[in-house]
Amino acid sequence: LSLSKRLPGEFELIARYFAPLSAGFAGAFGLTDDAAVISPTAGHELVLKSDAIVCGVHFQVDDPADLVARKALRVNLSDLAAKGAEPRAYMLDLALPGTTDEAWVAAFAHGLAEDQKRYQIHLIGGDTDSTPGPITIAISAFGEIDAGRMIRRAGARAGDKIFVTGTIGDAAFGLRVLRGELRGVGATGAQFLIDRYRLPQPRVSLGPKLVGLATAAIDISDGLLADLRHICDVSELCARIEAQRVPLSEAARTALAVKRDLIALVLSGGDDYEILFTAPASVTAGVMQLSKNLDVPITEIGEMLPPSAQEEPVEAIDAAGRALQVESEGWRHF
Amino acid sequence: LSLSKRLPGEFELIARYFAPLSAGFAGAFGLTDDAAVISPTAGHELVLKSDAIVCGVHFQVDDPADLVARKALRVNLSDLAAKGAEPRAYMLDLALPGTTDEAWVAAFAHGLAEDQKRYQIHLIGGDTDSTPGPITIAISAFGEIDAGRMIRRAGARAGDKIFVTGTIGDAAFGLRVLRGELRGVGATGAQFLIDRYRLPQPRVSLGPKLVGLATAAIDISDGLLADLRHICDVSELCARIEAQRVPLSEAARTALAVKRDLIALVLSGGDDYEILFTAPASVTAGVMQLSKNLDVPITEIGEMLPPSAQEEPVEAIDAAGRALQVESEGWRHF
Repeated sequence: LSLSKRLPGEFELIARYFAPLSAGFAGAFGLTDDAAVISPTAGHELVLKSDAIVCGVHFQVDDPADLVARKALRVNLSDLAAKGAEPRAYMLDLALPGTTDEAWVAAFAHGLAEDQKRYQIHLIGGDTDSTPGPITIAISAFGEIDAGRMIRRAGARAGDKIFVTGTIGDAAFGLRVLRGELRGVGATGAQFLIDRYRLPQPRVSLGPKLVGLATAAIDISDGLLADLRHICDVSELCARIEAQRVPLSEAARTALAVKRDLIALVLSGGDDYEILFTAPASVTAGVMQLSKNLDVPITEIGEMLPPSAQEEPVEAIDAAGRALQVESEGWRHF
Repeated sequence: LSLSKRLPGEFELIARYFAPLSAGFAGAFGLTDDAAVISPTAGHELVLKSDAIVCGVHFQVDDPADLVARKALRVNLSDLAAKGAEPRAYMLDLALPGTTDEAWVAAFAHGLAEDQKRYQIHLIGGDTDSTPGPITIAISAFGEIDAGRMIRRAGARAGDKIFVTGTIGDAAFGLRVLRGELRGVGATGAQFLIDRYRLPQPRVSLGPKLVGLATAAIDISDGLLADLRHICDVSELCARIEAQRVPLSEAARTALAVKRDLIALVLSGGDDYEILFTAPASVTAGVMQLSKNLDVPITEIGEMLPPSAQEEPVEAIDAAGRALQVESEGWRHF
C-alpha cells in the first residue's frame, strides 16, 4: 500500500536513510530485524528517556529538516546528560504526512548522522509510519551510568547551592523573534536567539561529571522556575533564586535593556536545555574547576531552603531583595 | 500554557493516570524524574522495540480507548515475543489533539493497566504532548533474554519447516468487516474478526520457549507472505508455503467458502500478530509438545528452500501444487 507518491516505500526508506545510521552498533542488526539488543557495561545500568516533538507545536513546518532531527534527538540527550548518563543509542518513531518528500527525509537523516558523530551514538530501531496529521517524531534514548548513581530530581538538601549551565532565556527569546514579537536585538542577536531555540546544545560532556557533585539535577525544558519547582516538589524543599545572577547571553541582555519586564520570560521560558543542579556549598570549588576544565559556563544563582507552608516553593528576588511576581508554571501541554 | 480546555494540565494527567502505572518498578521513580533506569538480570540483555500507531491509520477515531491502548502496547509485545524475550517495561509518548477529553485518557490508562497485569510489565517513562493532528501513540517496549539468544530473522536454514501460531487472516478480514466490505460471516463471526483486528493476542508465553527451537522468527504484522519474505531476505533463502495448510478460524473459513479469492487476503493481510517461525524438522515433535503444553495452536505450513535466482523468494501453492498469484508485499506505509 502506498500512501505517498512522493516517497519511496517504507523498506526502501529504511534501507536508504536509516539503516546506515545503525552501522557500528552490533545489537541493531542493521535495522533488518524486529528488535535490537543492548546490554549495559558491567557495573552499569541503562538510563532511558523518551520524548516526542510535533510539527506546529515544537517546531515549525519550514524549519530545516536536519535541525528538526537534531532537536528531536538533543532534547532526549539533554535529559540523559542531566541525569549523569553517557548516551549510547536511540530508537526513532517517525510519522510522516503524505506531503513529505524524499529530500526532507534525506536532510532529516543527515541531521541525525551529524549528531550521531558528535555524540557517539547509534540509531538501533524504531519505525516509519504515515499520518494524516503533522510530522511527529518520537525518540527513545538510552544512556549508561554506574549502577545506582543516576542524579535524581529528589536529593537536594536545604542549604545546597543552585547552579545553571550556559545562559538562560535564549530559546524563549528566539521563539519570540521567530514570531515577530521581539525586536531590537540586531540581526546577529536575532540569529543567535533563533539558533538557541532551534538547536539545543545538550550538556553531554558535563552531565556524567556531575555524578558525585550534584545532589539533584534537571534539564531546563519547561522553564527555569518550573524546573526548579520540579526539584523542590520531589525533594520536599523550597528554593530562592536571585534574578540578577541568572546568566544571560549578550542578545538576551540587549532585549532586557529595551524591556525590563522580559526578565519574566527569562525565568519562565523553556527550551534552553541547560542543566539546573543543586550541590552543597562544600563542592562549589569543584564545580567551578569542572566548569573551567570542560569550558562549560556554570553559574550559582540561588539556594535550596527548608520546606515552608507557602504554596509556591520557588521564590525569585531582584537585586534589592524584593520578590518578583512571575508566573512560574513554564510550558504545559494542556 | 493550556492547549486543551477539556483536559487537566499535563502534570496532573501524569499524576492521575500514568504515575500509578509505574508502581512496582523502582527504576521508574514514580514518573517523577526525567528518566528511568533499568538493568537486565545477570547473564541477560535487553531486547528493545519501538512502534507507533496513529488514529486514522492504525485505529479509528471511535475505537474504544482502552482497546487502542492495549493494541499500541501489544504490537510491541508481539515483537518481543517473536524474538524470544520476556517483556518487562515500556515507555509511552502520547500526542493528543485538543478535542481529547479526560474520559478518553482515563479509559486509555485503564486499558494499559489491564494489560500491565496480564503481561506483568510496567510503564517507566515517556511524555504527553499536544498535537494539531490525530492521536499518535508511540511505545517503546523492553524485554529480557539470555545474552546472545535473541531469535533473529536471519538464521533460517534450507530444509527448515515453517510454522505459524493461531489462525491467519482474521485481522485483515476484521478490518474489511468494519469497512462494510465483507459480509456473510454472521454476527458472531463478524465480531470475532473485528476483535482480532482491534486487539491482538501477542504470543508472550510461547515466544521465550521458542529459544533453542526456532532458527528464525518474526511476528506477522505486514502479512504472512511479506513477513516470510523478510525472513527469506536476511536468511538469503527462498520459501514455499502450502496455502491449504494455513490455519483459518471458523469465521475466516466461512468467508472463504463464500469467496475463494479471499485466500489472497489471508496470505497478504497483516495485523494478525501471530508468530511465524522456522525450525529444523528434527524439532517438530518438540514444537508440537510445546503447542500442547501452552495451549497455543502451532501449524506447519511450508518449508525453507535454497536461494534461487527468481525475484520473489516466497511461493504459495494450492492443494494441486500450482503456484498462487498473490501480491506478497503486505502492508506498506508509503
